[in-house]
This record gives sequence, structure tokens and C-alpha cells, in this order.
Amino acid sequence: MDYEEPALKLHRKLQGKLETVSKYTIKNKEDLSMIYTPGVGAVSQYISNHKEAVFDLTLKGRTVAVISDGSAILGLGNLGPEAALPVMEGKCVIFKTFAGLDAFPIVINASEPERIIDFIRMIAPTFAAINLEDISAPRCFEIEAALQNLGIPVMHDDQHATAIAVLGPLQAAIKLSGRSWFKTKVVINGAGAAGSAVAKMLSCFKFDKGYCSSVSDVIVLDSKGIIYKNREDLSGYKKELSEFTNKNSIKGDLNTALINADVFIGLSKGGVLQKNHIRKMAKDPIIFALANPVPEIYPSEAKKAGVRFIATGRSDFPNQVNNALVFPGLFLGAIKAKAKKITSRMKLAAAEALAGIIKKPTINHFVPSIFDKKVVKTIASAVASAYDPTEGFE
Amino acid sequence: MDYEEPALKLHRKLQGKLETVSKYTIKNKEDLSMIYTPGVGAVSQYISNHKEAVFDLTLKGRTVAVISDGSAILGLGNLGPEAALPVMEGKCVIFKTFAGLDAFPIVINASEPERIIDFIRMIAPTFAAINLEDISAPRCFEIEAALQNLGIPVMHDDQHATAIAVLGPLQAAIKLSGRSWFKTKVVINGAGAAGSAVAKMLSCFKFDKGYCSSVSDVIVLDSKGIIYKNREDLSGYKKELSEFTNKNSIKGDLNTALINADVFIGLSKGGVLQKNHIRKMAKDPIIFALANPVPEIYPSEAKKAGVRFIATGRSDFPNQVNNALVFPGLFLGAIKAKAKKITSRMKLAAAEALAGIIKKPTINHFVPSIFDKKVVKTIASAVASAYDPTEGFE
Repeated sequence: MDYEEPALKLHRKLQGKLETVSKYTIKNKEDLSMIYTPGVGAVSQYISNHKEAVFDLTLKGRTVAVISDGSAILGLGNLGPEAALPVMEGKCVIFKTFAGLDAFPIVINASEPERIIDFIRMIAPTFAAINLEDISAPRCFEIEAALQNLGIPVMHDDQHATAIAVLGPLQAAIKLSGRSWFKTKVVINGAGAAGSAVAKMLSCFKFDKGYCSSVSDVIVLDSKGIIYKNREDLSGYKKELSEFTNKNSIKGDLNTALINADVFIGLSKGGVLQKNHIRKMAKDPIIFALANPVPEIYPSEAKKAGVRFIATGRSDFPNQVNNALVFPGLFLGAIKAKAKKITSRMKLAAAEALAGIIKKPTINHFVPSIFDKKVVKTIASAVASAYDPTEGFE
Repeated sequence: MDYEEPALKLHRKLQGKLETVSKYTIKNKEDLSMIYTPGVGAVSQYISNHKEAVFDLTLKGRTVAVISDGSAILGLGNLGPEAALPVMEGKCVIFKTFAGLDAFPIVINASEPERIIDFIRMIAPTFAAINLEDISAPRCFEIEAALQNLGIPVMHDDQHATAIAVLGPLQAAIKLSGRSWFKTKVVINGAGAAGSAVAKMLSCFKFDKGYCSSVSDVIVLDSKGIIYKNREDLSGYKKELSEFTNKNSIKGDLNTALINADVFIGLSKGGVLQKNHIRKMAKDPIIFALANPVPEIYPSEAKKAGVRFIATGRSDFPNQVNNALVFPGLFLGAIKAKAKKITSRMKLAAAEALAGIIKKPTINHFVPSIFDKKVVKTIASAVASAYDPTEGFE
């Protein structure tokens, strides 16, 4: 189905998708005196004497900010804050629909990381948590890292919710294909925010009793090919990636990377994976072709190359991987636990929870549906239990 | 009635008064594909090519930001952003209830004007208009003035909505008392944001066919007494006030200021006006005792000194003056007119409209009620008609 025209029409009809609604009907002066002056003065005074009460007496305790500068909107690139607004509004609708959390979209006219950081520091008193969205790499890393001491959870969705949404189902698929996690070789095409976060989690995934273990190897490619130690053009976060991925310092392109690989994760652009690529991979490979709207390879094509396990980002094929599977439950759990940040342990717990939701996974159903009510509930509960205020930010 | 305990209890029960609600029910994957990926991508792309469409395709076109730093909350002073949140939420509820406008409260952790200005510049793409609230003088003047070129209306409520809420009913009371506007002498006790804005509007009120005329004289007092030209301790906006008020450079305290004054406007603190003050005023004086919750003088006391015309800020006496009479209609009118700012002409039109709402005013009813549906409708319509994009900011 082509969504372009119907989506435009629907947005125009609704004039946006989210509205603010009073929880209290004002019928007369008495009602007004309760929610506004003079009554509200007592509430302000109380909060000024008991600062934590703001979580219980205002919307702060149940409301998430969804903040973007519009620099990396979906797969569309830097279209600016106004163009980001319908996406952020959509995320807020998802928060309310699936997690019962209130949420408000904030799009900002700023590009310098230090201004964005200052903006979020200023706005923090309003919200229970902050979901950073569609901010381009490498600025997203610096911005998120600078805000971990704010006292409320601040998380860049495109990194962590995407990584969790990949790793949960990937764990299920690896098991289903009869593989061992520790012997699995993974290739990630795309070294942006999402690719980098997936690589990090894969390198330290099965978190158990304080012990963290990784898959056999992870190879990440950017637009110039495989990332390896001492590649001359690397700096910043890509240099970091080169330090804990690609054990054997393999060089080359996707063809080389895929030799005997068990898993391909596409977080790049449509159509880059061909049947002859797949033939280089290990037997019975697992393909996550997550580019939107055109996947790296269509399921029908992949099947021609013998692929049984394929997930995409699209709703019209089986096994849809989407960060909407993760962020509602993740934030709900963090807010319920009154967490001051979202820790690695919480993210790993979310991925484990997601991996376990389908009790009897099959080839056509190893990624759960967001409409399965267990998804948000299970993730939220796992995340809340995993919060340990002594754990640092990684 | 004492509102403290019931208001606290209500706020705790509701966990705040405002919620975000989806305008569209998501029942299945198709629905999700319309409001989120892939459908929303077309909306983003469209906005990036037609920037003005963001007003029609998102909540931007119908949503006001209510922003405060918590530095001057009601009459309570600088209690910080968290304590300001219940007040801002209350304003948002009023926006929705009386004007049908969506609104969202934003409280910010910042005190330096330049940071607040930068914050509002950054957040502007999200909203149709920005209502600045409870920001202390003199910072409120600098902040508001710096933001008039943003392309959306930015208005400091405590100045202008309060001034309009005073001037409309005052015009009605002056007429009812048989006075001429041009011969009326007004004393304003309180030289904060509200007192200063009232003084400005009184000095240039009856705006008609491009001609602006003022009352006979305005005398403003701050905590040190009457403001007059060349008073040594004056600077900034108080120096400005001294230049267009107090024609005869009278010096002294409230006793001196009130000699033969027709109108007393209290925007200061409770109990400062006594019966012997009133006896110094002109015959049949008009008293606006607007301090909250304790007025400068209670109506019962004022009546003992022979006062017939008295308004307060309280809902439990006749003639309640409250900026809630003004801001819903003022912003609704500005947004309907797609105004890029709120001009002097629009504010004067709002005051004129408010003055004319009660067709047959009486001593006990010269201030209309916010529950009179004509209030918002009439103000909005007058404000929209008065928008002239060529007029500058004053």
C-alpha cells in the first residue's frame, strides 16, 4: 500500500495527531479557583518546600519530552525542525497508545551540540524523561553523554531503542537457527547512530550476574567499506568502533565482510544487499534488512537465495523490527522505577525481555508485534527491575 | 472558602491537570503506518518543501507554549521552575477550556535573560505562539522585546493580559461613574511587570483612527514611593516610566499621590490601602484592588469609606479582574489572523472589546465573567481584525 497521499490527507484533516486535554472540567468559578488562582498557589508553595512532589502534583511525573533538531529524520536526512514535528507527534501518540504515558513533541532550531545540551538542561524540570530523536551522528553521542547527570532519564532513541529492537529478536533468531550466541559472526552495514549502538550492544550483550559476553565477531561498514583499526580516515566514534569490532582487522567491502558471516544487519540504505552477497554467507543466514521504506533486500529476493530468517522495518512483511517495540516500555519502566538515568543493565534487560516474549518463535514470527500487549508490559517490568542507581553510564 | 487543602488534594488525585491525547485511534498496523513510518515520512517531506504547511499538518498551528522560569510566581515570588509548573498547567487548561486552543506548559531552569531568549528561539518551531508567564521584572521586558522578530506571537502575559484586563473594565467604570477618560487621574501602586504595562497602556489608550490619547495623568509608585523624573535611584524601565508619567513631578508617598486621584489601581500587596487614603481621593473614586489573595483593601472596608466602584482579583467578590479574561481570546485572535506578533493595536482592540462586553454595566457588574462566552469570542474577533503586519513592536 502506498501511504503518501492517505497520510497527508489524514494529517491535514486532523491538523496533527496529538492534543492537550484538561483532566478536570471547569464548570464554574469554584472549579477555576481550584486549578488556577488562588488554589494553585498552595500547590506551588508546597512544591517549593517539597521539590520531589512535583512528580505527583503535576504532569511532570507522567510526561516524556520527545525532542529533535530534525537533523536525521527517518531515512530522509536533515530536513529541519518543522519537518520533524509530524514524526515526533507520532512518537507521542505511540507513547500514549501503548504505554499510557503522556508525551509532548519538541522540535528545536539549533544545530550546535552545546546549544542543544543547554536547551535540554533548561527544559528538564518540565518532564519525567527525555527521548532524543532523529539527531544526526556524531552529535547525538556527545549530546546524550553530556546529559546523563540531569537526574531524569535522557536517551537517544535511534541508538538504543533501535539496538534493543534488533538484539531481542536477533537473539530469538539465533537460537531458532540452532546457533550459539558466542559463535555468531555479525556484519552491520551502516555506522550511524543505530549501527554503532547495535555494534556496542552485540559486543557486550548476554549480561548475566555481572558477566558480559559478546558474539564471536562484529564487522561494521560505513560508506567507505569495512571499519578496521588504524583506518586512516577514522576519528571520534568510528575510531572507537574500530577498537572493539573486527577482531582480525579485515579490510574491504561488503563482499569481503560477508564471507562466512551468520548475520547481516542493514541499517543503511535500500537495495544494497544482492543475492550473490548472500551466497557468500554461512549456511542458513539471518538477515535484518531494516532500511525504510526500501529494505536492503526484499524478503522475496532473499528467499530466492535460500534465506529462511528475514526481518525488515516494514509493517507489510512478517517480522517487523521497529523501535516502537521498545521505547514505550523502556521509558515506562524507567519512570516507574523513578530511575535517574537509563543504564546499560536496563537496556540489556529490555533486549532479553523482548527476546523472550514469543514463547514458540517460528521463521515467520520471531519478532513480536507492538500490538501484543505483553511487549510493553514485559519490557517495562524488566527495565524497572534492572535499575540499579549505582551503575554508571556507558 | 479556603482552597489550599482541596487544591492540593485535587492535584494529587489527578497527578496534574493536563494530558496529551491522540486524536486518532491506532487499532492495527495500517493505522500505525499512517501516523508513523512509513506514512509520516511523506508528511515530513511535504513540510520540508512547503514550510508553512507545518501549521496545517501538525499541532503547531493550534498550540501555545506557556513558558516560565518560575521567578515571579503569582504573588509568591521566585520559587523556581518546578513550583511554577502547576500554574502553567492551569493556564493551559484555561486555554483549552475557554479558547479551544491546545497549550503545553514549559518550565525552565534558567535565569539569565540571554539564555531564556536563546531557549525560546530554539523552541519556536514547535508552537503557534508563546505566552511568557511569571518572569520577574526587569528581565521580562528584555526577554519579550528580543523575541518580537521570531515570526510567531510572543507575549508576556503578566504585562499585557493584565493591563488589558484592567483597562477594559476601567474604561467601563469611568464611563459608569460619569467621568471623562481624558480628565481621569490614575494612581498605580506597584511598578512591576503589570503596573508598568498598565501605566503604558493608560498613557496611550483610546486608540482610534491612528490617534492615541491618554488619561489626564498617571502616577506610579514603587516600594520607595512616587516615581518622578530624575529620582536618583531610577534606572532601566523605571526611568522610562518616569519619563511619561507624573506630569507635575509630584514626590512623596501614597498619601500624596492619592490627593484628588480618580482611580487607584493596586498591583502590589495586600492591605496597603486604608480608609484614610481613600478620603484623600476625588469624589466617587474607582478602586481596583488586585493583589492576590489579600487585596489592597477589602470591598467591605472600601464601602465604609464611601467607595461604590471596586474590583478585586478574587473570585468570591463581584467584579473579578483576572488575566484569564484576556489571554485565551487574545491568543486565539492572533493565531486565527496568523499574526507574526501581537501589536499595540491588537492589545488596544482587546481592551476596547472587553470594555464593551457588558451592555448595561452596573456597580456590581462592570467586569465581565470569563464564563460569559462572549468574552473570548469578542476579544478574539477584535484582535484578529486589528492585526496589521506593518505595525511595529512597542
